[in-house]
Amino acid sequence: MKVGIIMGSISDKDIVEKTIDVLKRFDIDMEVRVISAHRTPFEAAEYARTAEERGIEVIIAAAGKAAHLAGVIAGITPLPVIGLPIKSSTMDGLDSLLSIVQMPKGVPVATVAINGAENAGLLAVQILSVKYPELRKKFKDYKLEMAEEVKEMDNKIKEIY
Amino acid sequence: MKVGIIMGSISDKDIVEKTIDVLKRFDIDMEVRVISAHRTPFEAAEYARTAEERGIEVIIAAAGKAAHLAGVIAGITPLPVIGLPIKSSTMDGLDSLLSIVQMPKGVPVATVAINGAENAGLLAVQILSVKYPELRKKFKDYKLEMAEEVKEMDNKIKEIY
Amino acid sequence: MKVGIIMGSISDKDIVEKTIDVLKRFDIDMEVRVISAHRTPFEAAEYARTAEERGIEVIIAAAGKAAHLAGVIAGITPLPVIGLPIKSSTMDGLDSLLSIVQMPKGVPVATVAINGAENAGLLAVQILSVKYPELRKKFKDYKLEMAEEVKEMDNKIKEIY
Amino acid sequence: MKVGIIMGSISDKDIVEKTIDVLKRFDIDMEVRVISAHRTPFEAAEYARTAEERGIEVIIAAAGKAAHLAGVIAGITPLPVIGLPIKSSTMDGLDSLLSIVQMPKGVPVATVAINGAENAGLLAVQILSVKYPELRKKFKDYKLEMAEEVKEMDNKIKEIY
Amino acid sequence: MKVGIIMGSISDKDIVEKTIDVLKRFDIDMEVRVISAHRTPFEAAEYARTAEERGIEVIIAAAGKAAHLAGVIAGITPLPVIGLPIKSSTMDGLDSLLSIVQMPKGVPVATVAINGAENAGLLAVQILSVKYPELRKKFKDYKLEMAEEVKEMDNKIKEIY
Amino acid sequence: MKVGIIMGSISDKDIVEKTIDVLKRFDIDMEVRVISAHRTPFEAAEYARTAEERGIEVIIAAAGKAAHLAGVIAGITPLPVIGLPIKSSTMDGLDSLLSIVQMPKGVPVATVAINGAENAGLLAVQILSVKYPELRKKFKDYKLEMAEEVKEMDNKIKEIY
Amino acid sequence: MKVGIIMGSISDKDIVEKTIDVLKRFDIDMEVRVISAHRTPFEAAEYARTAEERGIEVIIAAAGKAAHLAGVIAGITPLPVIGLPIKSSTMDGLDSLLSIVQMPKGVPVATVAINGAENAGLLAVQILSVKYPELRKKFKDYKLEMAEEVKEMDNKIKEIY
Amino acid sequence: MKVGIIMGSISDKDIVEKTIDVLKRFDIDMEVRVISAHRTPFEAAEYARTAEERGIEVIIAAAGKAAHLAGVIAGITPLPVIGLPIKSSTMDGLDSLLSIVQMPKGVPVATVAINGAENAGLLAVQILSVKYPELRKKFKDYKLEMAEEVKEMDNKIKEIY
Repeated sequence: MKVGIIMGSISDKDIVEKTIDVLKRFDIDMEVRVISAHRTPFEAAEYARTAEERGIEVIIAAAGKAAHLAGVIAGITPLPVIGLPIKSSTMDGLDSLLSIVQMPKGVPVATVAINGAENAGLLAVQILSVKYPELRKKFKDYKLEMAEEVKEMDNKIKEIY
Repeated sequence: MKVGIIMGSISDKDIVEKTIDVLKRFDIDMEVRVISAHRTPFEAAEYARTAEERGIEVIIAAAGKAAHLAGVIAGITPLPVIGLPIKSSTMDGLDSLLSIVQMPKGVPVATVAINGAENAGLLAVQILSVKYPELRKKFKDYKLEMAEEVKEMDNKIKEIY
Repeated sequence: MKVGIIMGSISDKDIVEKTIDVLKRFDIDMEVRVISAHRTPFEAAEYARTAEERGIEVIIAAAGKAAHLAGVIAGITPLPVIGLPIKSSTMDGLDSLLSIVQMPKGVPVATVAINGAENAGLLAVQILSVKYPELRKKFKDYKLEMAEEVKEMDNKIKEIY
Repeated sequence: MKVGIIMGSISDKDIVEKTIDVLKRFDIDMEVRVISAHRTPFEAAEYARTAEERGIEVIIAAAGKAAHLAGVIAGITPLPVIGLPIKSSTMDGLDSLLSIVQMPKGVPVATVAINGAENAGLLAVQILSVKYPELRKKFKDYKLEMAEEVKEMDNKIKEIY
Repeated sequence: MKVGIIMGSISDKDIVEKTIDVLKRFDIDMEVRVISAHRTPFEAAEYARTAEERGIEVIIAAAGKAAHLAGVIAGITPLPVIGLPIKSSTMDGLDSLLSIVQMPKGVPVATVAINGAENAGLLAVQILSVKYPELRKKFKDYKLEMAEEVKEMDNKIKEIY
Repeated sequence: MKVGIIMGSISDKDIVEKTIDVLKRFDIDMEVRVISAHRTPFEAAEYARTAEERGIEVIIAAAGKAAHLAGVIAGITPLPVIGLPIKSSTMDGLDSLLSIVQMPKGVPVATVAINGAENAGLLAVQILSVKYPELRKKFKDYKLEMAEEVKEMDNKIKEIY
Repeated sequence: MKVGIIMGSISDKDIVEKTIDVLKRFDIDMEVRVISAHRTPFEAAEYARTAEERGIEVIIAAAGKAAHLAGVIAGITPLPVIGLPIKSSTMDGLDSLLSIVQMPKGVPVATVAINGAENAGLLAVQILSVKYPELRKKFKDYKLEMAEEVKEMDNKIKEIY
Repeated sequence: MKVGIIMGSISDKDIVEKTIDVLKRFDIDMEVRVISAHRTPFEAAEYARTAEERGIEVIIAAAGKAAHLAGVIAGITPLPVIGLPIKSSTMDGLDSLLSIVQMPKGVPVATVAINGAENAGLLAVQILSVKYPELRKKFKDYKLEMAEEVKEMDNKIKEIY
């Protein structure tokens, strides 16, 4: 199983790294790329056109401002595309969010929170889990661990007050 | 293959019907429910807890205003959850959108556009297609049909001008 | 008299501490917890289901981003629930505010300002004062003190200009 | 037990009527008034100054646009004040919401959703329930009824699909 | 001289017609098309790739919601691209505006007002006027006429009051 | 001639100082006060009720968040009231601006830009100039000076490029 | 005493008429004009340059969308300028409001609420009252009348409940 | 070929410098000025009135807050005017953007992203390229270089993962 991760600019790498860490944790193969919907449009089209045949099963596209990358990819590939809006310097991420989530009828992008890089990875895991039962199992463990972490915080707080 | 569709109130039915039509078109089994995160919280939890064992593979949750339904379900089930923000009467849907998409680390909701009911259905199709090759094929046909429709519109416009 | 304070993450503690200080000042018993609507949903439900029988009379729930905690708790408990929206890193707190305040018909959450931690505590005091006359008295003293502080500032300013 | 309901203009009556219906249902005495923070400021101050001694235990203040009424009342009375933002014709209610909820430190207003008139009433019920056990009981029944209504909708939907 | 006008959907035609009327008034040749960045991505790319060689000198792209059309075209063609944000049903046009105007460094889109269809046409005229002196002359006449219209309105108002 | 300057909290002093500097420059008498619409409501009412008889001719009220001060004062005094919205820590000043500017019919507040402290002072000067010709003259000189400053900047820029 | 009223387009007349009615009620002379900052810029400049010498003491400028009229006039005249933002069809008036109120240092515009036409007139009255004591008296009467109207509404409501 | 660059204040220089660098790269003559629509309105009008005859072919106007400069210039000159919204300290640039882009019918401003200084320059290049074929050629080279840069980043990323 393989996930394609693309970002609109190398400046998005710090955020996207958290997505990569999540996928590593779940032992999922990745193909990480820098592709711009606007500056390398033909590479973007080619990437989307061939993603399925190269064995990619889910695509995660991260971009900021007028964030067209996820939508452009989703227009071409039949694969599910996860959109990760990156907070931009001037509009607090609202521009990125709306540019990604408000897709017209026919071409959905599965949008996560602004800078929600871990969730982009986890959503890919959940989607792949539909097919791969062992991943479903790992994801359930992840949920349990996460719950344990909250309970530990809870215990710590209870001690203080 | 089966998709669970839940809406927070029966008043969301007119929008959600477009999701149902999409799933019918792709011959996907559905379980349609009215469940409220706030008014029937135990039913919501029970629904989420048992969805997987009842054979549901993707959940679509539609809600408006402080739209907690998708997030609440996603907190319990390991299944991928698609959030459909319903435009509310006072905030133009921005409240629904932010309540659904801005999920904290660990619990993603795959959010589509405000009132993007068809896309919620299509995203479910894309997710199931990861597992079911025949659905992938149908989705590709759908994309081609959609392109044909645009081309027809294009031809019509070219005739006018 | 006892107030239940819950926060969605330990990272909210710095803000919530100001709520705790207010309640301490009014000698109100507290139960402070870290509970997540999404990561520990069953704990959240259990907390809400048993809060009344454990002697809690008002609940304060603090959360950020898609802040479902207050709403989820309010869906289960009959107790009044105060929602404290925490400013998030990407949306200036508007997401938290709308997720908490825009509750559907039937399940109110008494919402205070973004990061309005003191006011969450004071609102709990005012609610409890409906029942406990001695608290009403203390709250009136608090209002007088607060007025005195402003008058002192006023005097200081008058000296300068 | 008595609730004071004030609205900034008689044009808010259609919305506020839903609050009144809720309080009637719970057999709570009411004092309904039209008082403007800006056009009858002395009446507003007098109302707030004497509300407690006239036996009012909770105040609900409804207003639109630069909705100062709830805050002005809360500055004077020690009683809990519920703010009901009325959707205005030009800003979709965001102006009313922010003017009511963003109160400074020291003077909270328990804010409900824009046009959330029923919830304003229900929150008053919940606050009074802290003191009046019979009201708590009625509120629990209300919650059960509400859940039943959702379940009926659920059954209706299940029949259709 | 020729302007390419493309719209993302035939439903944008009513707005775009005002652009067409402006260009007709200035005797500018047009090529009007329906092309979708998401539903007919290859047609969009082909359109952009060949626009210059087909004699088009300025492109006007109209689209709503996550309005990627103008940006996608601008990524490929060296021609100036004017973006016309169409007001969408749920976000008042803010989503369209931000998706079009907030373009990343390197690929500008000359954005006009939401539903500013006449101005999209007039901006094309102004751009072409840089090259075609006779168009500059006509545009100056247009400005004078427009001023005359305002002065007539002014005279009418002066008569009334 | 005298201007009353009031601020909701001493924390607004750094901004308001720029208003004071403007009034000093124009040799206008001032009465600077810290008065809170919410924490010292009776002082606010008293201030507004007696401002005219104390010789104040224009009032400037600065406040942040749910900024009711200007509106509350304007409800009582017949004097023109200038509202200065202070940028708050969580909503970028939009809450302050809307709370001040969106006043209901009958009670205007002359609102200036968020943190527009100099302009609050200059607007007071312009209002007083209606009555005091010598102030009008000074204000015209101020406008000329301001123009000179821009021209100097212009000359500096012209030298660089 | 004379007030200059200008509107950017005759389509603003329906709103501005309420301003005119207010000024009539106070027997203030008016000069009503249609002047566009963008379509008749030289008329706008000429208007502003000569307003004072023509006996105008306050200017009210109404405009929508990118509402530059008030600011442009204020840049030239030393008279106080009141800005009346007109609700536009696509941005709910937020564009008009921000374009008018967010003036840079040095050139204030006294901004009233979106579509707050009566308040624009009343603010002019308050400003003129600084100079004309008889107008101050009339304005006080107006405030009393307004209070009476609210009290009548209050009495009507008290009868119903 | 010559481009006029004007900024509303010298404080905009740091942003505008990126526009200047772009134009230098394309060997385009520039006339850089500081002109304020509000503080030097007659200079602004004179600038706009004479720009064409001084050989300027495109104007770039940068301004923040209530950014009227571009619109005021566009009202006078027949030349295409590019508006560059500068991020202001209190509204995140939304005020500048709306003040520039929401121009009324008849007077377009070609708006680029908030702080999109490079794109303002590149749009000027694209507009001039309609007339000057050698510039079109250079712009195509620029697009290729830009694509190369993205590809290099892509290669770097591919090496890491």
